Amino acid sequence: MNDYSQMWSDLGIDIPSHNILMTALPELYTDVYLSQPDRPQGMAYFDGLISQLHGERIQELLEHKQRGGKVLATMCVFVPEEIVLACGAIAVGLCGGIDWATNEVEKVLPRNMCALIKSFMGFKLGKVCPYFEVADLVVGETTCDGKKKSFEVLGDYIPVHVMETPQMKNLIDYQMWDAELQRFIEVVENLTGNKISAASLQNGISKVNNKRKALQRLSATRKADPSPISGKDALLIYQTAFYDDIDRFTAKVNVLCDELEQRISAAATQHTVPDKLRIMVSGTPMAVPNWKIPHLIESAGGRIVFDEMCTGERYFQNLVAQPEGKSVAQMVTDITRRSLEIDCACFTPNQVRIDKVIAKTAEYNVDGVIHYALQSCDPFTIEGFRMEKQLKEAGIAIMRLETDYSQEDVGQLQTRIEAFLETLAERKG
Amino acid sequence: MNDYSQMWSDLGIDIPSHNILMTALPELYTDVYLSQPDRPQGMAYFDGLISQLHGERIQELLEHKQRGGKVLATMCVFVPEEIVLACGAIAVGLCGGIDWATNEVEKVLPRNMCALIKSFMGFKLGKVCPYFEVADLVVGETTCDGKKKSFEVLGDYIPVHVMETPQMKNLIDYQMWDAELQRFIEVVENLTGNKISAASLQNGISKVNNKRKALQRLSATRKADPSPISGKDALLIYQTAFYDDIDRFTAKVNVLCDELEQRISAAATQHTVPDKLRIMVSGTPMAVPNWKIPHLIESAGGRIVFDEMCTGERYFQNLVAQPEGKSVAQMVTDITRRSLEIDCACFTPNQVRIDKVIAKTAEYNVDGVIHYALQSCDPFTIEGFRMEKQLKEAGIAIMRLETDYSQEDVGQLQTRIEAFLETLAERKG
Repeated sequence: MNDYSQMWSDLGIDIPSHNILMTALPELYTDVYLSQPDRPQGMAYFDGLISQLHGERIQELLEHKQRGGKVLATMCVFVPEEIVLACGAIAVGLCGGIDWATNEVEKVLPRNMCALIKSFMGFKLGKVCPYFEVADLVVGETTCDGKKKSFEVLGDYIPVHVMETPQMKNLIDYQMWDAELQRFIEVVENLTGNKISAASLQNGISKVNNKRKALQRLSATRKADPSPISGKDALLIYQTAFYDDIDRFTAKVNVLCDELEQRISAAATQHTVPDKLRIMVSGTPMAVPNWKIPHLIESAGGRIVFDEMCTGERYFQNLVAQPEGKSVAQMVTDITRRSLEIDCACFTPNQVRIDKVIAKTAEYNVDGVIHYALQSCDPFTIEGFRMEKQLKEAGIAIMRLETDYSQEDVGQLQTRIEAFLETLAERKG
Repeated sequence: MNDYSQMWSDLGIDIPSHNILMTALPELYTDVYLSQPDRPQGMAYFDGLISQLHGERIQELLEHKQRGGKVLATMCVFVPEEIVLACGAIAVGLCGGIDWATNEVEKVLPRNMCALIKSFMGFKLGKVCPYFEVADLVVGETTCDGKKKSFEVLGDYIPVHVMETPQMKNLIDYQMWDAELQRFIEVVENLTGNKISAASLQNGISKVNNKRKALQRLSATRKADPSPISGKDALLIYQTAFYDDIDRFTAKVNVLCDELEQRISAAATQHTVPDKLRIMVSGTPMAVPNWKIPHLIESAGGRIVFDEMCTGERYFQNLVAQPEGKSVAQMVTDITRRSLEIDCACFTPNQVRIDKVIAKTAEYNVDGVIHYALQSCDPFTIEGFRMEKQLKEAGIAIMRLETDYSQEDVGQLQTRIEAFLETLAERKG
């Protein structure tokens, strides 16, 4: 394994703090991931990817920058990677899955904010996220109050461009997001010095669509019973989708899918035992290394087969229309259309999300839904109440959980999850 | 005093619960308001108004409805009263200043939400707010996540129309709000059966502008040192502005201003002792009967001379352009322009608010700013951090408070406020 100390130091990373982080993660990963039995061979690539997330991947981004390329860091599925790619830049995610530098964060943000926002602020203030340090621009958005106002604070430490995301799906919202995409194109063109052409945007759309198709294929394999991949492994792939080189990532997901589809065929002929309990997780995104709830669910004997989250279906469930033969303006309109199909809780009303969850529980043969929300995330916590009500009316078992990144409530969560799974098992008979 | 029991019963009010509320309020009002020395005579009208807020005023609204009129209930300064009036309807506020039916609320909303939202939901679920019961339509908005998603829940109990408020001030936001106003006009026209005309909208704009001018005049009297009216009394007028008959209210505010301006002249000739400490309160709105912080400040010897809140300057600081000779479309554009001048923390960036606070501390000769935010109100709590930083850089004393509607923290708040005022007194010398 290469030594990246010099690279991190050159980036301005706080080396002693970063060493603490880098020491803690492998142990957690071994416990949560490597201890799983019967993992697909194709997961080896993603194990390597996660171990090199602060190393080799950052080196690649630096090499891209040395060739004159730019890096844009984002926190949201609304930010159009197609446009970033069309300008020859790379889009990456930001660190936000673990409490960090909380004392520093609480000097600039309120204490009772969602863990994700406090985390990304902590990674920046604590200088332990190389994606922040390598990024030329952070692209924020207004999907929730916490992010909207925190990006103002973040702007004190790094250049930030904020996109105004729509809150409804009326005609004017399509026009608004179209205008926001045009404004974003100007920003990325100015940053990179590259003008978008029909050919480059077509290329960007195709690359991102291919990534989404590979992830859709992965998701489809999970309809099989037994599901050929653990929920934790699937989540890891959804999480790393924000960081890896897009073409390599897409290829590796497809290789994994080949293996998973072979597993399904083999399981069918061998009459393999079906999943004990098939679970859907729905709610707020889970950033690396936030594996707390999936680990508890699968340790208690559940098998997660559907992730109704931004680190999950919401990231890839819709494609941009085929771009061939279209003008830049037409393709931008197509990106707008896809964006307005997103069923994030930032929209009002957002009945489409609840309808989808109900439909997917049937399609994926789900025994129960666990609705997960970060504490103080108003959009998802409030929508969780409505989802619970409607799923119960539809006869679907659901449990709502609210938590954060601490380990203090793990015992309590474990008890609740085990009790829920017991109820599901009795129901299943 | 009339007995309104039958009216409340006919409205579906929960009479025993409502009696508890009606018994508690006069005592609180005596303690907070009537005990103040040297109140302007013109406050007698507003004392009467508050005592009749659930009685005579509701009867007036019912009489309006018996004549075929409609009542629209709102929670936000973005909702255009001009359009409501132009259709012959009446806009009123909703109850939201006291914890109520919390157990019922926490069945449909998360526990850790801002007190204002939990309160209005509790007033509806507990059936103790006659404004909810008399309203034909609640007009919600998307100014914060909590309200945006709670209006979905409220829609299970009463008809709700939600307006999508802009989050930025780019050209597209003006277009979006213009479209939202057009959509709102259709809703109000359909509800009332009255089409808006240039004459009726002109009339609506003039009435609301006159109310705002009267409130601006009131605010201007508070520049005098000593200020001719207590902060608590001024707040009461700003609060009741949402409920009273618009023409009568405007006239009564102007009568009060005549008296206050006479007081100022008299004080100048008599060399009256100036205010000990002049305070600005800035932050989230204070709904009736949320007088907790102003009462603590003025009991500790401070004199509030500026309310930088939606129950305050944000409600009336800008006028719609003169409507004479304009078409409906032109006037709607003017309403849009005024709306986009609002400096609510829902906007990003919102530097204009901090700049205004700095400017007004000079204009109103303010000794210190108390930034007040309801717990879990992300827009204002986060912006409070930025405001504190910039005010300190500008040499302006500021203290940030976060609280809710409970009385549990009153002792702690009192200690903090007294300490802050002592610091200001030492600074003033």
